[in-house]
Amino acid sequence: MRFLVVGLGAVGSVFLSFLTRAKYDAVGLLKPGRDLKSIKVEGIWGEFDQNIKAINDPSLVPYKPDVIVICVKSYDTEDALKSVYKFVKEGSYILIAQNGYGNYERAVELFGKDRVILSRVIFGAKLLKWGSVKVTVCADDVVLGSPSGSVEEAFLKDLAHVFSQAGIPARYEREVYKYLWEKIIYNCALNPLGALFSATYGQIAENSYTREIMDRIIDEIFEVLKANRISTFHTSSQEYKEHFYNKLLPPTAEHYPSMLEDLKRGRTEIDALNGAIVKLAIKAGIKAPINQVITNMIKARENFK
Amino acid sequence: MRFLVVGLGAVGSVFLSFLTRAKYDAVGLLKPGRDLKSIKVEGIWGEFDQNIKAINDPSLVPYKPDVIVICVKSYDTEDALKSVYKFVKEGSYILIAQNGYGNYERAVELFGKDRVILSRVIFGAKLLKWGSVKVTVCADDVVLGSPSGSVEEAFLKDLAHVFSQAGIPARYEREVYKYLWEKIIYNCALNPLGALFSATYGQIAENSYTREIMDRIIDEIFEVLKANRISTFHTSSQEYKEHFYNKLLPPTAEHYPSMLEDLKRGRTEIDALNGAIVKLAIKAGIKAPINQVITNMIKARENFK
Repeated sequence: MRFLVVGLGAVGSVFLSFLTRAKYDAVGLLKPGRDLKSIKVEGIWGEFDQNIKAINDPSLVPYKPDVIVICVKSYDTEDALKSVYKFVKEGSYILIAQNGYGNYERAVELFGKDRVILSRVIFGAKLLKWGSVKVTVCADDVVLGSPSGSVEEAFLKDLAHVFSQAGIPARYEREVYKYLWEKIIYNCALNPLGALFSATYGQIAENSYTREIMDRIIDEIFEVLKANRISTFHTSSQEYKEHFYNKLLPPTAEHYPSMLEDLKRGRTEIDALNGAIVKLAIKAGIKAPINQVITNMIKARENFK
Repeated sequence: MRFLVVGLGAVGSVFLSFLTRAKYDAVGLLKPGRDLKSIKVEGIWGEFDQNIKAINDPSLVPYKPDVIVICVKSYDTEDALKSVYKFVKEGSYILIAQNGYGNYERAVELFGKDRVILSRVIFGAKLLKWGSVKVTVCADDVVLGSPSGSVEEAFLKDLAHVFSQAGIPARYEREVYKYLWEKIIYNCALNPLGALFSATYGQIAENSYTREIMDRIIDEIFEVLKANRISTFHTSSQEYKEHFYNKLLPPTAEHYPSMLEDLKRGRTEIDALNGAIVKLAIKAGIKAPINQVITNMIKARENFK
């Protein structure tokens, strides 16, 4: 299998370096003007320096990739998808390996649902500096699948096997979108508040005032999902919250959200998180005032920096 | 007329120093352990050093005051009112010279509406340090009155005259509570956001994201007021917003909210502002989610400091 990895932030750097090390054809696609020759990997999955191939012009991709792994920040999704348009028309699959809601939908709008694979990436990786990445934690396998069922299961299983073989544990799941929603809700509840208060997930949950805001964020998301007939692993907001506070949160209590770093740099993925909830609410003709305020707070902070 | 001024922050220091300079009997009541001999005044109403009388034990007040001016932060209202219980039972009037909603109501609960006078103080004063105050701006006279009409108009007019004569422009207004609401709404819209973003009123209004939050705060306040049958000078939220953005805000665009300083010191008056709106909403059986989130954000920030 041949890969094109678009975006060499933390997650893209892991995909490109591990696939390359495992002798798969893999090339990274960078923004114009950027360049990279090798990636230094450290953390829970081992330490190594890997020479990699990266280009900053899509016309220089040396082969038709089988899978194009989209790893850019969600505000760059549009540009990333358009830059690989030619390959998808020739038969490449798009694999969305991003956070938040809306990236998969946009890819499907552009390329059709039989060309787009969704994944939920839940290992933690931190770009220490350009070309240097640390894998900090792995909560579960990368889960991948076709929400519409339009991509052949055999291919999806092969793809998961390739990733696993390369050192990135992955599996196929028919209900991939439920896995992703599990993470989106988690991120919507924790990331903006952690970023606004420069606090860890645990601190945000311990403080009764931020915890109450989180509860309202989650309640509202479940109303919005219901209005949009989107189903999750949970039958109610209450059930999710119990799972969230008792199971999901404790292992990550010491973590600061990456949105805190994003905010310092001036741009976050809020539009793919709480901002996407607001858009889904509008689409269903309801309101999401809490997620709207939270979105505006982050965007105001982006502006006031 | 004899005065007791409870709390010698910025506003209390102005009342005590100006009344003393004008030869009225006036004494300041401080918290236990505190002491003050003179107040240095500067700013738009002139510069002078004034020897004052201040005590830190209510049993040492040398006379029965005619008017007890309550100038403490709203979170200290309860203690302040209880400390002067004896005088009010003997015939003193309480004059609420504080910001926010709930101080007047609490005083009326304790002492009855015929003992309590409400005022709207809208000169700006800043405590440069303990015993040193600067009068920075005066948007309008101090307005005072009896919301229930239970205090004699002649007395209220006399009181306003005394303040004016002492150098603090004041007048009696039957609709004093509408004046105060005008200010409360202004403070609810601007102060928490200015404090959360360390921004001036003008910056908060110029940024489209914070402006949208302000609009929603104001809309919600008007819903809550309507549900509680509280009337203002404005027939609708829309009308208030036009007045707010075009008339009230521009002259104060360069100001930072005092809540920003309060937040740095660790305690704000949020419970008498947006927090009071939430309580009024609950009382009327409706919700105020935006004011609730804003209140929680400020309280979380108080905690995380």
